[in-house]
Amino acid sequence: MKVSLIGLGKVGSAVAHAIVLKGLADELVLVSRRTEIAKSEADDLNHAAGLEDHSVDVRAGGDEAAAGSDVILYCDASPSTNIDVDRYSAARGNLQRFSERMPLLAAASPNAICVMVTNPVDVMSWFALQVSGFPPERVFGVGTLLDTARLRRLLSERLSVHASDVRAYVIGEHGQDQVASFSSASLGGELMKPDEDLMSLARQAADSAGQIYRTRGYTNYGIAGATMMILDAIRNNRRRTAPVSLRINDYYGVKDVCLSLPAVIGRRGIERVLRPELNDAEQATFHRGADRIRAAIDALAPSLTAAS
Amino acid sequence: MKVSLIGLGKVGSAVAHAIVLKGLADELVLVSRRTEIAKSEADDLNHAAGLEDHSVDVRAGGDEAAAGSDVILYCDASPSTNIDVDRYSAARGNLQRFSERMPLLAAASPNAICVMVTNPVDVMSWFALQVSGFPPERVFGVGTLLDTARLRRLLSERLSVHASDVRAYVIGEHGQDQVASFSSASLGGELMKPDEDLMSLARQAADSAGQIYRTRGYTNYGIAGATMMILDAIRNNRRRTAPVSLRINDYYGVKDVCLSLPAVIGRRGIERVLRPELNDAEQATFHRGADRIRAAIDALAPSLTAAS
Amino acid sequence: MKVSLIGLGKVGSAVAHAIVLKGLADELVLVSRRTEIAKSEADDLNHAAGLEDHSVDVRAGGDEAAAGSDVILYCDASPSTNIDVDRYSAARGNLQRFSERMPLLAAASPNAICVMVTNPVDVMSWFALQVSGFPPERVFGVGTLLDTARLRRLLSERLSVHASDVRAYVIGEHGQDQVASFSSASLGGELMKPDEDLMSLARQAADSAGQIYRTRGYTNYGIAGATMMILDAIRNNRRRTAPVSLRINDYYGVKDVCLSLPAVIGRRGIERVLRPELNDAEQATFHRGADRIRAAIDALAPSLTAAS
Amino acid sequence: MKVSLIGLGKVGSAVAHAIVLKGLADELVLVSRRTEIAKSEADDLNHAAGLEDHSVDVRAGGDEAAAGSDVILYCDASPSTNIDVDRYSAARGNLQRFSERMPLLAAASPNAICVMVTNPVDVMSWFALQVSGFPPERVFGVGTLLDTARLRRLLSERLSVHASDVRAYVIGEHGQDQVASFSSASLGGELMKPDEDLMSLARQAADSAGQIYRTRGYTNYGIAGATMMILDAIRNNRRRTAPVSLRINDYYGVKDVCLSLPAVIGRRGIERVLRPELNDAEQATFHRGADRIRAAIDALAPSLTAAS
Repeated sequence: MKVSLIGLGKVGSAVAHAIVLKGLADELVLVSRRTEIAKSEADDLNHAAGLEDHSVDVRAGGDEAAAGSDVILYCDASPSTNIDVDRYSAARGNLQRFSERMPLLAAASPNAICVMVTNPVDVMSWFALQVSGFPPERVFGVGTLLDTARLRRLLSERLSVHASDVRAYVIGEHGQDQVASFSSASLGGELMKPDEDLMSLARQAADSAGQIYRTRGYTNYGIAGATMMILDAIRNNRRRTAPVSLRINDYYGVKDVCLSLPAVIGRRGIERVLRPELNDAEQATFHRGADRIRAAIDALAPSLTAAS
Repeated sequence: MKVSLIGLGKVGSAVAHAIVLKGLADELVLVSRRTEIAKSEADDLNHAAGLEDHSVDVRAGGDEAAAGSDVILYCDASPSTNIDVDRYSAARGNLQRFSERMPLLAAASPNAICVMVTNPVDVMSWFALQVSGFPPERVFGVGTLLDTARLRRLLSERLSVHASDVRAYVIGEHGQDQVASFSSASLGGELMKPDEDLMSLARQAADSAGQIYRTRGYTNYGIAGATMMILDAIRNNRRRTAPVSLRINDYYGVKDVCLSLPAVIGRRGIERVLRPELNDAEQATFHRGADRIRAAIDALAPSLTAAS
Repeated sequence: MKVSLIGLGKVGSAVAHAIVLKGLADELVLVSRRTEIAKSEADDLNHAAGLEDHSVDVRAGGDEAAAGSDVILYCDASPSTNIDVDRYSAARGNLQRFSERMPLLAAASPNAICVMVTNPVDVMSWFALQVSGFPPERVFGVGTLLDTARLRRLLSERLSVHASDVRAYVIGEHGQDQVASFSSASLGGELMKPDEDLMSLARQAADSAGQIYRTRGYTNYGIAGATMMILDAIRNNRRRTAPVSLRINDYYGVKDVCLSLPAVIGRRGIERVLRPELNDAEQATFHRGADRIRAAIDALAPSLTAAS
Repeated sequence: MKVSLIGLGKVGSAVAHAIVLKGLADELVLVSRRTEIAKSEADDLNHAAGLEDHSVDVRAGGDEAAAGSDVILYCDASPSTNIDVDRYSAARGNLQRFSERMPLLAAASPNAICVMVTNPVDVMSWFALQVSGFPPERVFGVGTLLDTARLRRLLSERLSVHASDVRAYVIGEHGQDQVASFSSASLGGELMKPDEDLMSLARQAADSAGQIYRTRGYTNYGIAGATMMILDAIRNNRRRTAPVSLRINDYYGVKDVCLSLPAVIGRRGIERVLRPELNDAEQATFHRGADRIRAAIDALAPSLTAAS
């Protein structure tokens, strides 16, 4: 499996390192304009790969080196000095760059699955669908999978249960209006009762990315982990359910916007979308997120048109 | 971690092979009266271990070799030529042998976790608690975990989802009155709706062991797999939820009998018992199973008294 | 990858179990004439598979079910009540059965790699080459890989080093004239000095299979482990070196007979054969083994001709 | 197992990420003076850990948080803007900081194994031994293990064999006078013949770090991989051989200096040192490296005395 990783910033580098350690590609191409540095990073990663039992072959190159990819991991971000918690301020710069490159990348890898690992992920996933011409099952973003992992980690500690046995999904916007869908969550066969304690853990999970941004300036390990879960599901056709940012098709009245819902991920991308039942409060939050993303798309779409 | 495996029949041998392949013990003791054969089996397993990256050291011996174990896997069964589907016909012979050995094994490994991998598992787990003097969190049986795995496999195929994302637990009796607790089951955040199709898969799962018994005379691979999941949870303190046969303490009115409920398994054994809500039909089946096990215990308890 | 396993005796069953636990096939076909039992074994293995993260799909069938295989593991043995240590007494029965089936199996899977997991492996590998019409890189036997593993295990314990860092290969006949090629062996960069102590460990390794045979009647775990190493090398194109029984092409004057030499195993089968230097004593033993195998082939070839 | 990681630069961060992905600690403490940033990095790593099957618990703190460690990974480096290829220019700054902290760290973790992951590794390992008061089997550096991995990767590609079957060790100085000990190297049972082609690959391997430094400014993935191999050997008592920087005790006349020799690494640290035979040219290079390290130690020792 050939995986191309677009963008070698903090996130892209952590994703590349994780791929090498987990052996989740046969061929990994680091796509960057800074060719010499990317080549050195590939060399360093190859040295790491030589110590593993599996073997990933890492190369570096420009966009043309991505041709024939099975998976494109889009990790490129505009170099912004002040992202803070607002993921949307980054969008305009990202988008300009993206609308130029994505059609060419897609044309050169017509069967690829394209995973957006860049913020604002819901907005970027929507534009990726527009400009790539790919079908919706092959374009999606690492949305609230990471939020889900954060929440499960907190619940796991509180409840003394393995995180994978905490069956609570965070869905909706990858941002402040994310929805911890407790009303359909379960734990080892018990349905969860969303008391104030659990709700406060959900808020803590939602805030944790912002806290990291404020001190460290970025997050990269958690998002790399979430990307690995998706890549593993594709490579090994695991059909694991993970909430990813995908085009919503009439869910509680929302449509034609990308938000996260649990989806079955396999060799062909999204194989099935799950539709959890939400209570009234959850629905309201979900709709707020949808409105916010829709507004961002409407605001940014003209710049896209100008670019293409 | 020292693991002692009592009984080297079809089940015990498959369990030993799986331990070696998965590296789930540092020291594995094969306890059998047929010492020469057990020693040869240990040699053969050591050759297999030498090809693995981890290293399990396999030895053979009599009951005294089990002293100081961290985990005792009790796989011994009376050599019955006609077990058929009725797991209870095997109990009397098992029990006699068991009531003599278990107190000595327990005394020699006072901190061990004892896992019953022998049928009728619910009855045997109850007697194990009685004669070992161990606290209930350290004595339990591989109950409906295997039935759960069978059901999830069928549901996984029907629903095109990874089996670990099918969150349906089979609980209650490890036998004909097992309960597929669909009323609290979920799938990727969706609650399951137990229609006739799913119910028929549950019956198919419940029947599958009997079918294998009738043609092949025994099952061993599935039960070995279930034992590995438990052993892994203990060794690596995973705190995974698995339905195991444990002493029920007032669940829907049932008490002082061993049946399976989902439990969190970790380094110290059972760390928490989950109590799924059941609908009326599920409760009725659960009670039938409890009555059957209670009756078996009452019928067999005198022979135990005589033996001890 | 479709793997077909021919023969469900003790060895075949252990191989099947190991494949499921290690996830070394996508599709595993158990080929046996006892269809009902094989089907039950497949069901039991599928239950075990449902507990793993990877997913092997196990089916059972007759020879026709093996069509289109990527790998054929030939584990069938004639049901002999008195194999003892002499692996050659089993050959005539095996051969008759084999010479009828192999051409059909090969024709139905024209691109398969065929691995002989049956004794006498050197003889059977030679006949497999003859009757299959496959090129030599796609027909070989699990020869002295297991003997190598046994020797390394003993050396590992004696020298307190991980077995994979003990670089001593057992080559030649899979039998009494196996050669522990100490004269080119190394340990962590030190060349080994084959003193009397090491030589005695080599004899102990060579004798260990016979000891197991005499008490237990068969070996299966070690040979299953060796088969897994080969299957892993094929499936994941590992290019690992392992001594396997292959057609010798002028090595110390020996040719047109199958004996074990270290070979690089990858996706296409044998990718390269290594040719260790032997001292005089090692050469003499190697030649004795070659003569013995040649004699067995000459004695058995007429029955093959009659059969085909 | 509690692992403390001292220093969160490029190397330390990559090491921490790898530990989380591989599950090579139960508790991982990130020791840094920049507490807030370290805490954020720990949070981010915990999010990644929540997506893994194993579970590493990551915390951040000052030097006092390292108390009671089983392993100390010393990754701290002086922030130098011009390291270039000369690893020794970094030493004075490192050393000052180091000679103050190490005695306190050692006293608070009296049973720890201390692994130096900082350059110039041979010099730093020697001083670590001096100031820690630890026995030599518990203080060593990730020396030429990485050089060995680089060489094996190149040889693996050239020879079409898995890197772990290429048994060539790079020993001596972790620098320009490293020794590719071809004269005792083997490949699948064949002794290697060090022709000009292989020698040129050895030079290429030795130069590769410098090339990465010149373009990217640092290496971190390869060194993190080498550190993982050592940590795995300690945690799982693997007794793997790896060339690490250890105090040489009369090897070809060299003594009381740290250079790399293949060593067996297990739970207690260095369990055995191998002593490969070198030919004349190899000995000469080894001696040059020893002289260089000795000179560096002599030049730097006074500053150490002043500091303590």
